[in-house]
Amino acid sequence: MAVGEFPFPAMPTLAGIRLSTASAGIKRAGRKDLVLMELAEGSTVAGVFTRNAFCAAPVTLCRQHLSQADIRYLLINSGNANACTGEQGMRDALACCAAVAGETGGRVESVLPFSTGVIGEPLPVEKISAAIPGAVTALDENGWHDAAQGIMTTDTRPKGFTGQLEYQGKTITVNGIAKGAGMIRPNMATMLAFIATDAKVAEPVLASICREAADQSFNRITIDGDTSTNDSCVLIATGKVDLPEITEAEGGLYEALRELLVQAFTTLAQSIVGDGEGATKFVTLTVSGGRSRAECLEVGYSVAHSPLIKTALFASDPNWGRIVAAIGYADVDDLDASAVRVYLGDVLIVEQGGRAASYTEVQGQEVMQREQVSIAIDLGRGDYSETLWTTDLSYEYVRINADYRS
Amino acid sequence: MAVGEFPFPAMPTLAGIRLSTASAGIKRAGRKDLVLMELAEGSTVAGVFTRNAFCAAPVTLCRQHLSQADIRYLLINSGNANACTGEQGMRDALACCAAVAGETGGRVESVLPFSTGVIGEPLPVEKISAAIPGAVTALDENGWHDAAQGIMTTDTRPKGFTGQLEYQGKTITVNGIAKGAGMIRPNMATMLAFIATDAKVAEPVLASICREAADQSFNRITIDGDTSTNDSCVLIATGKVDLPEITEAEGGLYEALRELLVQAFTTLAQSIVGDGEGATKFVTLTVSGGRSRAECLEVGYSVAHSPLIKTALFASDPNWGRIVAAIGYADVDDLDASAVRVYLGDVLIVEQGGRAASYTEVQGQEVMQREQVSIAIDLGRGDYSETLWTTDLSYEYVRINADYRS
Repeated sequence: MAVGEFPFPAMPTLAGIRLSTASAGIKRAGRKDLVLMELAEGSTVAGVFTRNAFCAAPVTLCRQHLSQADIRYLLINSGNANACTGEQGMRDALACCAAVAGETGGRVESVLPFSTGVIGEPLPVEKISAAIPGAVTALDENGWHDAAQGIMTTDTRPKGFTGQLEYQGKTITVNGIAKGAGMIRPNMATMLAFIATDAKVAEPVLASICREAADQSFNRITIDGDTSTNDSCVLIATGKVDLPEITEAEGGLYEALRELLVQAFTTLAQSIVGDGEGATKFVTLTVSGGRSRAECLEVGYSVAHSPLIKTALFASDPNWGRIVAAIGYADVDDLDASAVRVYLGDVLIVEQGGRAASYTEVQGQEVMQREQVSIAIDLGRGDYSETLWTTDLSYEYVRINADYRS
Repeated sequence: MAVGEFPFPAMPTLAGIRLSTASAGIKRAGRKDLVLMELAEGSTVAGVFTRNAFCAAPVTLCRQHLSQADIRYLLINSGNANACTGEQGMRDALACCAAVAGETGGRVESVLPFSTGVIGEPLPVEKISAAIPGAVTALDENGWHDAAQGIMTTDTRPKGFTGQLEYQGKTITVNGIAKGAGMIRPNMATMLAFIATDAKVAEPVLASICREAADQSFNRITIDGDTSTNDSCVLIATGKVDLPEITEAEGGLYEALRELLVQAFTTLAQSIVGDGEGATKFVTLTVSGGRSRAECLEVGYSVAHSPLIKTALFASDPNWGRIVAAIGYADVDDLDASAVRVYLGDVLIVEQGGRAASYTEVQGQEVMQREQVSIAIDLGRGDYSETLWTTDLSYEYVRINADYRS
């Protein structure tokens, strides 16, 4: 199941990026399970990674390599997460980077490795290494769609974004691909996102945009509250457009690019939610009127993670009592329940500590029947606001996740 | 569905407590939906209540009355939670207390009100008031079993505990009854527990035992992570046993009574988990080796609330990758993944950041097939330990909670 309209766009080439997709036979012979991305010399790269203490070997290695060298290649495999694989996992991830470096004549530290798939199984390094020469030969500027498919695991559709902006007569392009929603299937891990632009951006500025955009997108979506061992998001600037380098977080070019990148991150994040496990609803949850962003998020996650609210969404039941209870048990100091307002779509359902006088169940029912549902909560005590995206909890979710690992 | 063996015990009388159960016709005519409990003069009373900001009117009134007067009556209705009912809800709860006070010639502040059932509907005060004279007349020392049934909502079985201890030739009795698991059914709220002893205990000591015992029991169980608007736990000491009053939190009598009360609270809490919605597994989760109780609980709730782990439990799947991922994303500073050990039953499944060398899937499968599953996590960095009890997440949970409110 999948909800919402997230068609895969026609992806233009992006100067400075070549991609290829290959079959290494990691889980099944013939499946495209390996993606190689080549970045032009002079590209800057930034990344945000899972904070999971059991982060996978490739994540540890990504962090190291980003601090050690200019990045020239990204190697992504699906079918095996190389997570919870101890010392051997680190050696295996490094061996894959070395295979790319050997084939391309570069440094091992210039390769970033990414893995997604089963946790706790040794990475089949030989199969991956054997597929690398072919992947290098096949590198092509037109590889975006194939790459989006190559990184899929249990995703039901590839996820992509493309957008452009004009600045001083020049065209800047942003392309992005992503996969998977958090912990997807038995032992399947990982959200991965790769976003690139041909603008020229100094590394510190790129890093701050990456953090900020991820915070407003990938860190604002939740399917089941679980954070995987492999979650990674990488932002690349190839600098191939003939415009001055962005060296400060200010100015018209910076603002325009930042806005387009936030749009790219947000679209990819939303497309992940739309492809959430067993999802039948796409839910936009806005918490406003908070004294801080933190308390808006606290309330938002309390609502978004409540199995009672998620099952009510699945049932299209405008069960305002459950929403109110979840707001009430969020960890917010001195929340005045009588100041809180809750809206389903445009319908005011809760005010002054109880059901709104104007509210009728028919109104709520009408909103809840939709595939896309918005819930807005006004805490009535400040000026901060946050938006999250999530899904319902269906029989299908239980079925997918209770299925024995295949 | 319900798991585990929690038979309702033969409850002896407890000197200083009389109970009655009546039909007020709150939701359905003829159903026993009202319980009155009378406490002997001189009883001391302590309570812990939900921290939900949308706490129900009766909870607010309980807190007020406990601070204003000696408590002589507890009035509990099922079928309506009197929650999210605004000012009217406060007037209604007070009116019920006044009805009891009027009939018994006492003070309104000496009555504690409790409600459980549908959220957001006005309390039918007239029906309740009309049933009170009969309830007063019917008060009897032998009413424990009927009372345990009268407070049930969607519970599939009544929950009770009884125990005794001998001290200097005298017998002290502890009786307790409880209902419900958190937010149970569409708009059904509330965990309620009433525990009484005939020992004589000064109010501050009783309050500290109540807080401590609730913390080790009702605050350590979770079905779905949701905390209701009405959760209440009350501890009563009638002082009818001819022994000195316990005025300090020390000494043999204090220790013996405290231990028996913790056992009462824990048994009732576990019986609530065993009757959790759609539960097919009773899970005991122990987190040891923490640097603080807080971090043990952080890891414990991270695991206990993970829908991925709960669905794996439902499927009897020893999916250690999901357990490891949930430990990893718990908010624990500088957790060294390589020091963590995880056991399923007695079987070591994870060590040194990955699957234990000695572990075979057959071993894990054998443990997971059981109705009672224990998961033990050793963080390997300190001396603190905490235990939680929870359930799995089944199709039945989704079915119960996705059913439209009847």
